Amino acid sequence: MTDPNWLDEREQRAWRGFLAVNAAVRGRIARQLQQETGLSSADYAVLVSLSEAPGGRLRVFQLRVAADWEKTRLTHQITRMTSRGLVVREPCPDDPRGAFVTLTEAGWEAITAAAPLHVAHVRRWFFDALDPRHVEALLDLNDTVLAHLREADRTDGAACPPCDVPPSCDDVLP
Amino acid sequence: MTDPNWLDEREQRAWRGFLAVNAAVRGRIARQLQQETGLSSADYAVLVSLSEAPGGRLRVFQLRVAADWEKTRLTHQITRMTSRGLVVREPCPDDPRGAFVTLTEAGWEAITAAAPLHVAHVRRWFFDALDPRHVEALLDLNDTVLAHLREADRTDGAACPPCDVPPSCDDVLP
Repeated sequence: MTDPNWLDEREQRAWRGFLAVNAAVRGRIARQLQQETGLSSADYAVLVSLSEAPGGRLRVFQLRVAADWEKTRLTHQITRMTSRGLVVREPCPDDPRGAFVTLTEAGWEAITAAAPLHVAHVRRWFFDALDPRHVEALLDLNDTVLAHLREADRTDGAACPPCDVPPSCDDVLP
Repeated sequence: MTDPNWLDEREQRAWRGFLAVNAAVRGRIARQLQQETGLSSADYAVLVSLSEAPGGRLRVFQLRVAADWEKTRLTHQITRMTSRGLVVREPCPDDPRGAFVTLTEAGWEAITAAAPLHVAHVRRWFFDALDPRHVEALLDLNDTVLAHLREADRTDGAACPPCDVPPSCDDVLP
């Protein structure tokens, strides 16, 4: 292996800052929302994901919580939310091994109550710091990195899980 | 409560992109590093944090893994790394309730082997997408948000845990 191409001082600061800003902003929003509503950031992400889907319903593999979640962790998350009455599991008519997750009335109420609080925290901890120039730069950065990742997937033929491969839902249905 | 100040379309894209880029980049780096070295991203964060400390040693509350980790999750993380021989726990001479975590020889070997792989992945999934203008904009964005958070802490008198309040280490020492 050739000598590692270590990050220079500016790159190091940019990378660590990128991680630190994300962790700090998400951490603050998560703590406040938890205190105010009892919802964790994972609960909130699942509720948002479902509330934006037709009929408040998605296949388990379509739920967006976080890219680095293992399947078993998602399964436990859904189990906890089911036992709290926020979502229900339903079998797929088209796929006997598959499962849907659907928002309940209580789930709709929870996301409706939490969303105005959440957006206030996103403004307080993130957008209140930024001017239009920062937002412009962030949009450009996001688009650039995401296009780079898509291009890498296309070239490698290795798409990121779980976008393309519906996992078996056996572990979700009882 | 007044009407929520919802994000407009550009802010929505900027916020969701900010989350998506972070999750996608960290997810890819984590998966590759896990495959190559058996280290999770949390293992790696703990090893880096210790390797940069004098004597490879930190108090538990000084370990940086992720801002949203609960104390019990950090305790379990350290327990697992101890059982794999990557770190050892040692009592604090100055604080009978406190604990140090120290890198072992195997821990040093693990971080020394993993760091060149990790930096290659950070380049591949992040810096290879960026030009110097992006890095400049990112440094500015990071500094701006972190200064805003520090200022909010100063004004609120509410510093972010766990920076300032050393938690009891009872739950870490056996």
